[in-house]
Amino acid sequence: MGKSKFELKTPKGTKDWDGKDMVIRDKIFSTITQVFKRHGGVTIDTPVFELKEILAGKYGEDSKLIYDLADQGGEICSLRYDLTVPFARFLAMNKDITNIKRYHIAKVYRRDQPAMTKGRMREFYQCDFDIAGVYDAMLPDAEVLRIICEVFEGLGWNKAYTIKLNHRKILDGIFQVCGVPEDKIRTISSAVDKLDKLPWADVRKEMTEEKGLDAEVADRIGEWVVHKGKHELLDKLRNDPKLSANPSMQAGIADLSLLFEYLESFDVLDRVSFDLGLARGLDYYTGLIYEVVTEGSAPESTPGAVASAAAAAPAPKRRGKGGEDDDRSNDPTVGVGSVAAGGRYDNLVGMFSGKNQIPCVGISFGVDRIFSITKARMAADKSAAPVRNNEVDVYVMAFGGKGFVNERLSVCAKLWEGGIKAEFLYKVKPKVPQQFKAAEANGVPFAIFLGDDEVAQGNVKIKEMGLRDGHPEKEGILVSLDKMVDEVKTRLERKKTLESVVQQAEGLKVVDGIKTEDAPAASDAAEAAPSTTQ
Amino acid sequence: MGKSKFELKTPKGTKDWDGKDMVIRDKIFSTITQVFKRHGGVTIDTPVFELKEILAGKYGEDSKLIYDLADQGGEICSLRYDLTVPFARFLAMNKDITNIKRYHIAKVYRRDQPAMTKGRMREFYQCDFDIAGVYDAMLPDAEVLRIICEVFEGLGWNKAYTIKLNHRKILDGIFQVCGVPEDKIRTISSAVDKLDKLPWADVRKEMTEEKGLDAEVADRIGEWVVHKGKHELLDKLRNDPKLSANPSMQAGIADLSLLFEYLESFDVLDRVSFDLGLARGLDYYTGLIYEVVTEGSAPESTPGAVASAAAAAPAPKRRGKGGEDDDRSNDPTVGVGSVAAGGRYDNLVGMFSGKNQIPCVGISFGVDRIFSITKARMAADKSAAPVRNNEVDVYVMAFGGKGFVNERLSVCAKLWEGGIKAEFLYKVKPKVPQQFKAAEANGVPFAIFLGDDEVAQGNVKIKEMGLRDGHPEKEGILVSLDKMVDEVKTRLERKKTLESVVQQAEGLKVVDGIKTEDAPAASDAAEAAPSTTQ
Repeated sequence: MGKSKFELKTPKGTKDWDGKDMVIRDKIFSTITQVFKRHGGVTIDTPVFELKEILAGKYGEDSKLIYDLADQGGEICSLRYDLTVPFARFLAMNKDITNIKRYHIAKVYRRDQPAMTKGRMREFYQCDFDIAGVYDAMLPDAEVLRIICEVFEGLGWNKAYTIKLNHRKILDGIFQVCGVPEDKIRTISSAVDKLDKLPWADVRKEMTEEKGLDAEVADRIGEWVVHKGKHELLDKLRNDPKLSANPSMQAGIADLSLLFEYLESFDVLDRVSFDLGLARGLDYYTGLIYEVVTEGSAPESTPGAVASAAAAAPAPKRRGKGGEDDDRSNDPTVGVGSVAAGGRYDNLVGMFSGKNQIPCVGISFGVDRIFSITKARMAADKSAAPVRNNEVDVYVMAFGGKGFVNERLSVCAKLWEGGIKAEFLYKVKPKVPQQFKAAEANGVPFAIFLGDDEVAQGNVKIKEMGLRDGHPEKEGILVSLDKMVDEVKTRLERKKTLESVVQQAEGLKVVDGIKTEDAPAASDAAEAAPSTTQ
Repeated sequence: MGKSKFELKTPKGTKDWDGKDMVIRDKIFSTITQVFKRHGGVTIDTPVFELKEILAGKYGEDSKLIYDLADQGGEICSLRYDLTVPFARFLAMNKDITNIKRYHIAKVYRRDQPAMTKGRMREFYQCDFDIAGVYDAMLPDAEVLRIICEVFEGLGWNKAYTIKLNHRKILDGIFQVCGVPEDKIRTISSAVDKLDKLPWADVRKEMTEEKGLDAEVADRIGEWVVHKGKHELLDKLRNDPKLSANPSMQAGIADLSLLFEYLESFDVLDRVSFDLGLARGLDYYTGLIYEVVTEGSAPESTPGAVASAAAAAPAPKRRGKGGEDDDRSNDPTVGVGSVAAGGRYDNLVGMFSGKNQIPCVGISFGVDRIFSITKARMAADKSAAPVRNNEVDVYVMAFGGKGFVNERLSVCAKLWEGGIKAEFLYKVKPKVPQQFKAAEANGVPFAIFLGDDEVAQGNVKIKEMGLRDGHPEKEGILVSLDKMVDEVKTRLERKKTLESVVQQAEGLKVVDGIKTEDAPAASDAAEAAPSTTQ
């Protein structure tokens, strides 16, 4: 076992997650999962690699970004590029599943070329929720939008986000009426999709010069795609004689009209903006499309620690359902990016199963972007307590020269038995300051002291860390071993309640549950009043 | 978007997880995570692939099972083979981390050759907990053994498992005293490792014929490796003049003696068996080694649904820290297999960092095996209620011809707002039996009815599913919309308490929390007494 000579690193475009970043990310996952479950979501787990032919022909020119496994004999496989295609493959394979609300939180892989990387990760998380099944129009779609709102409210964003939405059939109607040839509709739609990054003049140029669209047609499109609104924009479309005569447009208007009604009942209509400039890149969308933007999602505000995911030069826009895909670029002309995106795709399952078509609608949350924003907000919130690395409730300490190692183990066993999170120092005769340092380094809220007197009498001393002078329990309280677990539980419960009251009173709502007690004063170690000699 | 021609499947050795299997597996993960956190564990997340050279030279002849990524330009990478080597790489890279209790639950990849597969998965989960840092002897080791016990108690195995343990230094002492040449010690240790699968005669044959060991030396080894015990076996070693004079043996005896003392304090000494026949395959262990066996882990008892993970022919034994590795073989002479395994490895981090050595001790739980046993036990437990696919609390239904779609959406929004898990049927005018069918298919415990009278008066009817005739709330109770959330919460809480009391009374303890209410009687749909016409 000799020394290694090569550079110690993770592969390009990948990273380790640990420490407080991991805690924050876990909390985001659990908030999102909680919402998904509240809506009856079930999760599935698909392999990280698929047969190469499953992915073939699904991602257009971005197929070159797919990671392949080496041909070591046998099947040829590739790492998954997103979670949507594996979900469609799963539905096509399991013919007994005709409807499902599934969520999937997992890593996907995109092998960006060096020139394109600009800080994009090659391994990153997607967080998807999709509703598959034949249902009445817009009911699942409305619930997905409600889910989006619950996720961001759960993350404490407090309405600081907007769901931009549009309908493929409405876009198609506009293109048809404006005179876009049928075979150019998808490519012109892709050009419109760049409107959130580029000014209209550039998009128009792409349409006419690159894609050969008639300039007059482009100008007619330009008049429509700048509009945003809600019911009044629907009325504007209805009142245009040419548009309202278009069957695709009629279908789209009927859908959105119904959707707005349902969103009103779901109490989230105020969160959406009907935006004719939203097109979404992926070909497979067939109906409603949406993406979520927030002022806070501007890459400029991303803190240094995550700068690698938001580099400073513009990058070509990625296609993909995941919100984070489209928005890691950092075009200086753009102040907002999306943090989630999705839409209705009624034909994807049929690409695998042929006749068995299952309509789907879904949302993908861009966890990397949401993480960056959440972390930046927490850093900006001066009143917020530091994030703890672990969740330990009690640090079990020995006072005096004997170390009481077996007594500490026995006390820990009792605490664990009672479901209490506890640690002790892995030393037979630990020094008192060492134990305090370990406890305080992580803001452990309670300590249990074992000294000569306590051990002789079958007692322990429970001390809350960081109490102010004069607090009746400042010096800790003596309890017998058999009452220890209950006493600790009572105090933990009380502390939790108190913190939640304080938090409500301050009107703070960062990420629910991440806030913790201030780290106890470093002077605790010195102040602690052991009942025995040290 | 045409039809595809190729076979729809997941790659060989991989599978999708969904439905009740996924629910059970998630519950196992959450039970294990809960224990890890109780001991102050923090989690890290490393990339699914590593630079190929990181994995090189770590797995001996099994390196051929490593999956490589295709060379698409740039770095050459491989999928991780376990979680231990990436952890050691992580520690070596992060020199500021000198100690950590880390857990990691993630997939690993082993490309078994077709002849070797015999039902082994190529993608499977490992569930690792490791304690890294320079500490006093056997304290972290003892805590890892305590953690093992808490995991299996948490899974409801109720002491139906044994931790077999041994010490590399004791084994080495025996080999040295018996006269094994220094350069044959590791290979002879590997032969001993097969004692749980093969009779001594076969192992002896391997030692003498394959590995060229002197027959007398083999026989001397044979006298020792059959012994099992605890303190009395330690005494037996101490009382042998030759063995007790061996320095390696002395160090091993001192460690185990201390360990037994600590396990006594941790109240888990009764769970361990000191077994001189346990050797563990991996070279990197340097001290204590252990694996967990259970009678229930016999592959023969594995139900058909998971038979692919426990095929019927013997397979060569795999090396690896993970317990499931060694035990997917199904040698008919073997009735038990291990469900978790690990040990102390003090030199692995130094393979990457050179001088910065960090001693580690850890455990890897074999989730696939644990899943199979848990599922089989649940299936065998006739009194256990079926596992639910999702966790929905309330199904919101319309009675009467109007469908009340917006009223249902509004009621759902209120329930979700109150943190209650709720669903409704995605139909504008759903039929009553359809709604009952959907609710009952998943054993939803409560329904909320909206009929003409309820809607007119701003009320809803809350009905607990499956109540017996004569129950005072059999017909449901009428509450106003603004009291609905509180009333549902009260009933959910009451039902939960009642179920936990019943469960305790029955002395049942399968997987905590998986048990749920019996699916309501199918006759509910017919019996339901709507206040309005249907």
